[in-house]
Amino acid sequence: MTTTPPRAAPGRPRDQQVDRRVADAAVEVFGEHGWTGFTIDAVARRAGVGKASVYLRWSSKEDLLTEALTLRLCPVRDVDTGTVRGDLVQLVEQMVGLYSGEHGSAALRLGLEARFIPQLTARYEEMTSAQIRTARDMVRRGIHRGELPETISVTFLLEALCGGAMNRALTARASGRTSRPRTDADFAKRFVDFVLTPVLVDPRAD
Amino acid sequence: MTTTPPRAAPGRPRDQQVDRRVADAAVEVFGEHGWTGFTIDAVARRAGVGKASVYLRWSSKEDLLTEALTLRLCPVRDVDTGTVRGDLVQLVEQMVGLYSGEHGSAALRLGLEARFIPQLTARYEEMTSAQIRTARDMVRRGIHRGELPETISVTFLLEALCGGAMNRALTARASGRTSRPRTDADFAKRFVDFVLTPVLVDPRAD
Repeated sequence: MTTTPPRAAPGRPRDQQVDRRVADAAVEVFGEHGWTGFTIDAVARRAGVGKASVYLRWSSKEDLLTEALTLRLCPVRDVDTGTVRGDLVQLVEQMVGLYSGEHGSAALRLGLEARFIPQLTARYEEMTSAQIRTARDMVRRGIHRGELPETISVTFLLEALCGGAMNRALTARASGRTSRPRTDADFAKRFVDFVLTPVLVDPRAD
Repeated sequence: MTTTPPRAAPGRPRDQQVDRRVADAAVEVFGEHGWTGFTIDAVARRAGVGKASVYLRWSSKEDLLTEALTLRLCPVRDVDTGTVRGDLVQLVEQMVGLYSGEHGSAALRLGLEARFIPQLTARYEEMTSAQIRTARDMVRRGIHRGELPETISVTFLLEALCGGAMNRALTARASGRTSRPRTDADFAKRFVDFVLTPVLVDPRAD
């Protein structure tokens, strides 16, 4: 999550509470209706503020959505637990939480719609590149420590893990379930074991 | 793909070519704008026909979208190649083709939006249940033939394979690539080998 405060309109102090309500409303409207249904009017109504208050703070709906998503969607954090299994469990748990949590619908829509919203395309690419870098670093540390064979396909390993996390979240959403931290953590542990255990280097071998 | 012809309005012969154009336009509009942007007006304009022609044939936009998606989205077919590897390669190849192909955007949106469109919810559940049944049958045949251990988690294996296929298609779409049969087939073979090889029962063992 970025901690950069929203850009203030020149000469006008920001009302933090209004900013927060508008950011929440923006993420909700985008999550439910996508870019086609994303209007300043819909966001202002959802936030219970006047359209003028929104326009005073954001010059366009692209600006508003980009800032709201940057504030509300936590990118995946690198967690160095000391083992590749521990790191990848953290990765999968964060991803299931992101996609099946409160803002999951917005996060999933981004994957489909970001490339049609010019200002968001670049921001989305930054977010996903950072995510891929974090995940690749976890696997590389595992190879470096001798836990994984050097010949392993990092791309395929992450495709299976991250795809599985997304698939799981989509299934949960389709049946109306929301993210539950304990269930997500339990899934992450068991799923990572399923994918990882058969490819781990056996320390007794050689 | 279903081959049931569209329901004819009483007493009026159907113009097959108009039906086809409207179905294509409906899938395109839904793929680009989702349910929020799905209007009879937008579909008629895209198809180059009058709104009246659409209303003559379909009584509601729910009807139109449900029928168009049923006609245009091919559900995953069961292919019995004789080996679990062969079957799952077919499964992954079909899924990558579905999600990164011409109607892929509509197929991916369905996963997010079907539950907000009452008439589509049931149809979507039928489609996904059939897909899950097909995939589970492939894995069960593999267990029955002794290619996979009986203790394998069918759910996790499919979560990894189907999630990986979806992830791959989303990455391709985000960078503007469309489905290319040879590339999809090559990915399917290599990805299935990655996930499956370590868990296959070794016939030389015991």
